[in-house]
Amino acid sequence: MTGSMTGQAREKSPAAFVDERRLWDRHMALARIGATAGGGVNRQALTKGESAAWGVLYGWAQCRGLSVLTDPLGNLFIRMEGRDPDQPVVLTGSHLDTQPTGGRFDGVYGVLAGFEVLEALLDADLKPQRSIEVVSWMNEEGARFAPGMMGSAGFVGVRSPEEIRAVSDNEGVSVGEALDLFHGSLPQLLRRPIGFPVHCFLEAHIEQGPLLEAAQVPIGVVTGMQGKRTFRVTVRGEAAHAGTTPRRQRRDALMAATSLAQSLYRLCEDPEDLVRFTIGRFLVDPGAPSVVPARVVFSIDLRHPDNAHLMRLGDLVRSTCEACNGVCDVQVEELSCAPALTFPDSVQSDIETAAHRLGLRHMRILSSAGHDARHLHKVCETGMIFVPCREGISHHESESAAPGDLAAGAKVLAEMVWDRAN
Amino acid sequence: MTGSMTGQAREKSPAAFVDERRLWDRHMALARIGATAGGGVNRQALTKGESAAWGVLYGWAQCRGLSVLTDPLGNLFIRMEGRDPDQPVVLTGSHLDTQPTGGRFDGVYGVLAGFEVLEALLDADLKPQRSIEVVSWMNEEGARFAPGMMGSAGFVGVRSPEEIRAVSDNEGVSVGEALDLFHGSLPQLLRRPIGFPVHCFLEAHIEQGPLLEAAQVPIGVVTGMQGKRTFRVTVRGEAAHAGTTPRRQRRDALMAATSLAQSLYRLCEDPEDLVRFTIGRFLVDPGAPSVVPARVVFSIDLRHPDNAHLMRLGDLVRSTCEACNGVCDVQVEELSCAPALTFPDSVQSDIETAAHRLGLRHMRILSSAGHDARHLHKVCETGMIFVPCREGISHHESESAAPGDLAAGAKVLAEMVWDRAN
Repeated sequence: MTGSMTGQAREKSPAAFVDERRLWDRHMALARIGATAGGGVNRQALTKGESAAWGVLYGWAQCRGLSVLTDPLGNLFIRMEGRDPDQPVVLTGSHLDTQPTGGRFDGVYGVLAGFEVLEALLDADLKPQRSIEVVSWMNEEGARFAPGMMGSAGFVGVRSPEEIRAVSDNEGVSVGEALDLFHGSLPQLLRRPIGFPVHCFLEAHIEQGPLLEAAQVPIGVVTGMQGKRTFRVTVRGEAAHAGTTPRRQRRDALMAATSLAQSLYRLCEDPEDLVRFTIGRFLVDPGAPSVVPARVVFSIDLRHPDNAHLMRLGDLVRSTCEACNGVCDVQVEELSCAPALTFPDSVQSDIETAAHRLGLRHMRILSSAGHDARHLHKVCETGMIFVPCREGISHHESESAAPGDLAAGAKVLAEMVWDRAN
Repeated sequence: MTGSMTGQAREKSPAAFVDERRLWDRHMALARIGATAGGGVNRQALTKGESAAWGVLYGWAQCRGLSVLTDPLGNLFIRMEGRDPDQPVVLTGSHLDTQPTGGRFDGVYGVLAGFEVLEALLDADLKPQRSIEVVSWMNEEGARFAPGMMGSAGFVGVRSPEEIRAVSDNEGVSVGEALDLFHGSLPQLLRRPIGFPVHCFLEAHIEQGPLLEAAQVPIGVVTGMQGKRTFRVTVRGEAAHAGTTPRRQRRDALMAATSLAQSLYRLCEDPEDLVRFTIGRFLVDPGAPSVVPARVVFSIDLRHPDNAHLMRLGDLVRSTCEACNGVCDVQVEELSCAPALTFPDSVQSDIETAAHRLGLRHMRILSSAGHDARHLHKVCETGMIFVPCREGISHHESESAAPGDLAAGAKVLAEMVWDRAN
């Protein structure tokens, strides 16, 4: 059996059936869902836009005879049944949600590259030993519901479904409420419970940095991920009339929060420029021009490739905030703490072998961004394949990638998936 | 004629017909519209809440046989026809809109005190020579649409209807769109054109400061208003990925804006504590935890009782912003510039006389807050009557006032309105 499969694999390379034009067209089709005036995409987690994107993918899967499933966490799975459906599956994919001013490739590429692999196998008339599934994880971006990577966190069990469902967006809508509406919009999907045995997980993604483009290399063999800690800081003062209240009597939450923010920016100054410190969300309440702000809530996203540095800086966030809150109260909550990780060398070298076999230039590269692969790494052999993106720009409407590079990544993915499934 | 009126006025004092309980109950009824969990009111301009408040007031006016009119600016008028309806009217009132976390008395007191005067005159069977109208001005607060005092500004002609209609809220809804929907919700109101001759304007209001309460004086005779300048500052950077973009390559709009804000707070430090400097609105875009902010827009509200100080500080706002914007672009727009003003001494002394006649303690007081009376002052004799509020707190859900003080102010207002109408 194994011998015949190897023969089959040798005869037909699934990579040869990867269709660059089809893959590009599928990207452009999904980019229309949530398209922004600036040429990007705003398709946040569990919105109507993501629901529409699921619908399109469901339609494509149905045309190819593939089944589509969802679990109670709002993860989507497209399944190609293997000849031995009881064995742990080979899983690949990424996410369909975007940032509010996101691009056309972040996340969606990993899902469409996986779907292209399934289509290539169908076109090549290749049936794998293990089942292969393409996944779109729920809320990777964490833009609407923080923190992100929720679907994969729930899948591997590091967060409970109850905890995930209780998280609310800025309008007070919970993940649970949004998820029920979301599932209700596509009742034809098959339901499955949370979690199943996974043989290995492979995620294709745009680099979101400038290195591959600069080196003119189409394939990044991802060695691991830099560490990341996220926090929510709440500064509480008191609302007051802007015209009548003297400064000495004010407890101005914005005055305290801007001072805090400046202290944190100073704390994270780094001559090597390796610290990644970002305050991306900053909400001021009540937010009226003639009212002294009563409350500010802001996010902290802190990353570093070195765990010792990450831990030291992260541990200083609280004391820095508490040192300069003035007459306001400050509360610092750590939302997530993910140390730096290294993917198994076996996966990295197999990606290199596949790229080499296809005549594609490749290089090892660290992921500065977080991905769902972080969570899957805890339960199975995991790896990532990067492709270049223009000028390293991501999380921005002008994010772009070349059709040939996207196809190159899908070809390597096809080889990897096929090898691991047999 | 004048003689008989004076006789009528002497026989019956309209103040004697002011009903403390009725006035309080009307406040509590309107406080339910837009009531917040914290005991305050969120009833912003041209929302469903304000529409409902108009409806209630219309109902009360109709019960008393008073006509209700609105103009194309969204100002509301309740009219008691005088014996000589062609003479310029005596106008009194304030506004029904509130801050997002506003209280139960700011604005609404001026409208209900005016309405109480009309009811007192009806109960006393007193018919004035001049018509008397009670007004609720559109968007005094400027919380939803900035800057505020829009309805009164349009009424006296300092802003054009076109300019007013073009202003948008944070959701991109224009005043024009909101106003058309708003007027559509109450089609039974009589329509009138913008502006008409006004004999005098009197506005009753809670003090929004601590002086009357501290002095245990129920009546504040307002001498004038401190000056106020408002600005909108826009800081433009560039969105980027929080995990991959080194600080040297970032154009972080929030990093620049928090630095700017701190410089402005320092600029406005004042040993005398007379400067009122507030950044109340502060919007960060796109506002996602893992995206470097591309844009920050914030408001500046600057006030000072002395015009020279106000001008000097206001003129430094732009250069301060331009001195510390770092790698971002900054744009400073002045939205309004209102110098300090003094109400006519004749109005002030008439308020004192009325309070004295009623045996109510009174004192002269400067208004630190802005009011629609500022605009009316340009076209007619104008004055304001203040009543105490608890601990000077306003623009806050805990804003409070005593029924007896509210009635005292309404009594002085009744005497003033009746005298001026005859």
